[in-house]
Amino acid sequence: MSGFIVDPAFETGSIFVGDTALCHVRLQNDARWPWLILIPRQPGLREVEDLPSADRAGLIEESVLAGEAVRVIGAATGFGVEKLNLGALGNVTPQLHVHIVGRRAGDPAWAGPVWGAGIAEPYAEAALAEALKAARNGLRL
Amino acid sequence: MSGFIVDPAFETGSIFVGDTALCHVRLQNDARWPWLILIPRQPGLREVEDLPSADRAGLIEESVLAGEAVRVIGAATGFGVEKLNLGALGNVTPQLHVHIVGRRAGDPAWAGPVWGAGIAEPYAEAALAEALKAARNGLRL
Repeated sequence: MSGFIVDPAFETGSIFVGDTALCHVRLQNDARWPWLILIPRQPGLREVEDLPSADRAGLIEESVLAGEAVRVIGAATGFGVEKLNLGALGNVTPQLHVHIVGRRAGDPAWAGPVWGAGIAEPYAEAALAEALKAARNGLRL
Repeated sequence: MSGFIVDPAFETGSIFVGDTALCHVRLQNDARWPWLILIPRQPGLREVEDLPSADRAGLIEESVLAGEAVRVIGAATGFGVEKLNLGALGNVTPQLHVHIVGRRAGDPAWAGPVWGAGIAEPYAEAALAEALKAARNGLRL
């Protein structure tokens, strides 16, 4: 949609994966968890309520699809996903975005939330390529 | 729906508010934040993907409504909500549930997540009655 710009704050910790029907999708560059971020491509969004109702239904459908993709990323990178975590916080970066994170018992923040937990561990180059490929396959891009 | 039972784990830290079209709704008994929990009233749900697609749209609409109710609770209890946080984690209690939490700069966990942050501070009796009344008004129950 005209006027949409990704907040530059996303660029430091995540990598562009592709566009779904509704969202700009990014891979969190943190090898500790398979983790996607969905950013609806509309300007001025801050809360889920700011999205038109029809697009809210689209957002939850794309969140489910992103959950499948997170499982595919996990399979490609040796992280067997046991539980999905979904979060829309925006306390630090207010542009509306949804985190979809794969979790398993004993992961570095288990059973707490991943947000604010420790320091990101960027993917090694080959693993990053695998994760991006898996993300695009999982999202059917 | 037949066969739905609220996980008893919710009973220790939260209080029943009422039923929306889709969900059993609870108030987190923690005066630090205005906080509602939506639990879709269907048995065997663990992830958002387990909900039928039509009900997923309902869940996000009810999440938006719960956000309005969280603002009403905040107004009734002296907590001016500046940001909503939405989370579906389930690492501890796997029954599908969505947290809708009112946040503001300087709150006890700001800008981090509320989950796992410190120790709950139960409402005093009068404040609890106010919060429950506000929740029901906000949810139009």
